[in-house]
Amino acid sequence: MENSPLYKIANPESIAFFGASNNPSAMGTSILNSIRALGFTGRLYPVHPKEAQVQGLEAFGAVADLPQVPDLAVLVLPTAIVAETLDACGQKGIRHAIVVSGGFTEIGAAGAQLQQALENVAQKHGIRFLGPNCTGIVNSHHRLNSTFLPYDIRPGFIGMASQSGSFITQMFDYLGRYGLGYSTGFSVGNEADIDLVDCLQYLARCPHTRVIALYIESIRRGREFIETARAIVPHKPIVAYYVGGSEEGRRAGFSHTGALAGPDRLYTGIFRQSGVIRADSITELFDFCWVLGTCPIPAGKEVIIQTHSGGPGAVAADACGRSGLKLPALDADTLARLAPFVPHTGSCHNPIDLTFTRNPLDYYLKIPEILLESPSCRSVLTYFLVPSKTVRQSLELMGVAADQLESETEQVLATIAEAIAALPAKHGKPLVGFSFRNHEDPFARMLYALGLPVLPDPGRAARALAALVAYRRLKMKIEKSGSN
Amino acid sequence: MENSPLYKIANPESIAFFGASNNPSAMGTSILNSIRALGFTGRLYPVHPKEAQVQGLEAFGAVADLPQVPDLAVLVLPTAIVAETLDACGQKGIRHAIVVSGGFTEIGAAGAQLQQALENVAQKHGIRFLGPNCTGIVNSHHRLNSTFLPYDIRPGFIGMASQSGSFITQMFDYLGRYGLGYSTGFSVGNEADIDLVDCLQYLARCPHTRVIALYIESIRRGREFIETARAIVPHKPIVAYYVGGSEEGRRAGFSHTGALAGPDRLYTGIFRQSGVIRADSITELFDFCWVLGTCPIPAGKEVIIQTHSGGPGAVAADACGRSGLKLPALDADTLARLAPFVPHTGSCHNPIDLTFTRNPLDYYLKIPEILLESPSCRSVLTYFLVPSKTVRQSLELMGVAADQLESETEQVLATIAEAIAALPAKHGKPLVGFSFRNHEDPFARMLYALGLPVLPDPGRAARALAALVAYRRLKMKIEKSGSN
Repeated sequence: MENSPLYKIANPESIAFFGASNNPSAMGTSILNSIRALGFTGRLYPVHPKEAQVQGLEAFGAVADLPQVPDLAVLVLPTAIVAETLDACGQKGIRHAIVVSGGFTEIGAAGAQLQQALENVAQKHGIRFLGPNCTGIVNSHHRLNSTFLPYDIRPGFIGMASQSGSFITQMFDYLGRYGLGYSTGFSVGNEADIDLVDCLQYLARCPHTRVIALYIESIRRGREFIETARAIVPHKPIVAYYVGGSEEGRRAGFSHTGALAGPDRLYTGIFRQSGVIRADSITELFDFCWVLGTCPIPAGKEVIIQTHSGGPGAVAADACGRSGLKLPALDADTLARLAPFVPHTGSCHNPIDLTFTRNPLDYYLKIPEILLESPSCRSVLTYFLVPSKTVRQSLELMGVAADQLESETEQVLATIAEAIAALPAKHGKPLVGFSFRNHEDPFARMLYALGLPVLPDPGRAARALAALVAYRRLKMKIEKSGSN
Repeated sequence: MENSPLYKIANPESIAFFGASNNPSAMGTSILNSIRALGFTGRLYPVHPKEAQVQGLEAFGAVADLPQVPDLAVLVLPTAIVAETLDACGQKGIRHAIVVSGGFTEIGAAGAQLQQALENVAQKHGIRFLGPNCTGIVNSHHRLNSTFLPYDIRPGFIGMASQSGSFITQMFDYLGRYGLGYSTGFSVGNEADIDLVDCLQYLARCPHTRVIALYIESIRRGREFIETARAIVPHKPIVAYYVGGSEEGRRAGFSHTGALAGPDRLYTGIFRQSGVIRADSITELFDFCWVLGTCPIPAGKEVIIQTHSGGPGAVAADACGRSGLKLPALDADTLARLAPFVPHTGSCHNPIDLTFTRNPLDYYLKIPEILLESPSCRSVLTYFLVPSKTVRQSLELMGVAADQLESETEQVLATIAEAIAALPAKHGKPLVGFSFRNHEDPFARMLYALGLPVLPDPGRAARALAALVAYRRLKMKIEKSGSN
């Protein structure tokens, strides 16, 4: 990892910062504030031609004046002065940079000329850089966030490289809702120097990254992409969302980063050769990462669905069928063990439909455990109706005092959540939940925090589980071809 | 509407209730509490063989003892005594019922016999009934909720008939999150008497219903369904989610309500003939209802995308392309009007990418208005980054005192929200938003409350807009064939 050109970019001990000022609404100021807000522990040197202080930090009139050679320069400057500033950085001895500024190839011929000048300067000094036209990076484990929105969620396991900075920085809030976060996220912008392939190589070695996510408008080095991905997939899953498949998407990508997208089938071929799992939307990209990053790999495509409502069970079953998953019948032994829990209105066909369960411990612990222990079961898909109300009611009937009802309920829910979240590792089989309930619900939040995925729609849960099943197949295929 | 067998079921002035007790965790008690919680204004007569009072209401030992003939009986009783209880209701003169109890055809031959007995009793007395094996109905405008979860959201415009009660009652929380709600929702259960077609006829005439949603595991009266739907579609859109398309979905539906589903293509044919719009998931069903129930019908498939981030714009463009929508270039006049708002890093190709906008009034009001006024534009799709932070910052710079910052920010956001929500009606063109931000955000909540749809994913927004475009085509096709 230390040999990657991205190492010093993602793990700098010192940063020269260009473009922050005492104007709080400037983009550069927002980014400087993001870096400080996450508690970056290295040294931070704002460079400003006029101010002695920027946002309370000592500022320097020129990069030449800095008391050391920083590991990294971050440039958030008007397009016209980016190349000359990078040149000054090179003269100082700086060898890594993030160029946030836009106005290069993405705006046409005039911009392309400026980008060429920038590349020439970088080559002259041997500078490796991310951008231009990017929003920087977040390395939550190094407390570095050089994007313009604050990273106020927990460090995570999703390593991402994105040709749209928005899908790094504007997703913090989204990921945080489900207890997810980035290990490291790279906005690669126009990829004048460092590109997706470099990011893949870095993320492959990053110990905090359990799954790699890619947002792709165009792959510039096809062969290297395929080779790199194939080497990674046996150890770490890669999920990609490709946007240029339709004519409308292709054109939009071109005016965004100047990327030349190819037809859908070309990318389908690249992903197939690479062992990369393809997602159909940004939401699905993160759904897949959630399940791939938290669940054991199932030994096959057989799924048992557990529900207490026929409709959601049927929808999950249909979604499994459409995603290529199988719903086996249960073996006699498992059926016998389930029988005491299933009322006469229920069903032991798969989906297992309890219709109702008075005791949440049965629904959330005993029944999933019986299912996970069944030899016909490779994975369990469970419908979650949040049981807070049931638990509170039971405690009330048991005579718990009104002023202790809230905290006792929370305690019981926490105990259930911890026990259910421990089941997948114990049995080496995935348990994926789905629910239409609000992600703000305390029980849901406990499960997220414990790494149990509960997706907001049965179809999304089934497709994410199918991605996990697909990962096993892709991994085995590459391993097999590699050993020949 | 008054002639529908569902009229007295959805609008009773008095109810005989069977199955509630002083056990708070009994299903019947939950339903009785739901009815009272929504503030039902009619008379409510619990019938209980032993108790003099049920949940504080005067209870009656037998239906024969009631002081009047109620409009409706609700039965939440053990399977074995349902038919005899309905018989007693018939003798009293009751002509409408909801049978919540399960244990009928959905559990096999023994249950089918009990259901036949129930049907015989109903026929003998001329009773029209919903169920069995259903969760009842909600008519939010009549303050009636006979499902087991409380209806604590506002009255809405979605009229639903569902072969799964869960998709009525368990979606209250989901719909409420987006400012949506049911006008009337029917859980039809096993459809021993009243079925989907009856519900369609009722909802067609219900003045609070702007769009009809269907959850279908099987259509029992195919010809009547098609004829009824074709008569409705010119006046009101119908959206359906069909679950039995895969083998796994078909089998699950069968053990849920005993419904015999057909292959996907059969239902595709039925929906095409009926003019019904097909949704691919429950989430999509409600996405489509949201846009169909709030937006003017666009005159064509041309969409202008407005964004301040290239990635989300490209994703929306690709999703539009995949959904059959077109992204026209802007006319010269519109381009000239937009020019002052677009920085040099931005793009005036469609998507219109502002890259950033310092003033939210430009982004949320002036630019959408210019786009909606353009003759090349039939609809606008806008990326919403919630501007609360920007607004607060601007107010702070303008010198607003710290203790007034919160309320002033809210006031400004409310003004923006009201203005933007008024645009679609003013221009007779839809404006659909998309955002990855939390639905709990105050600005988002203001927009939802004002009826401006902001969907949580660009692909979902594009597909919902495409459903609205499809509705225009389906409506015109039926109108044309009707006039020949």
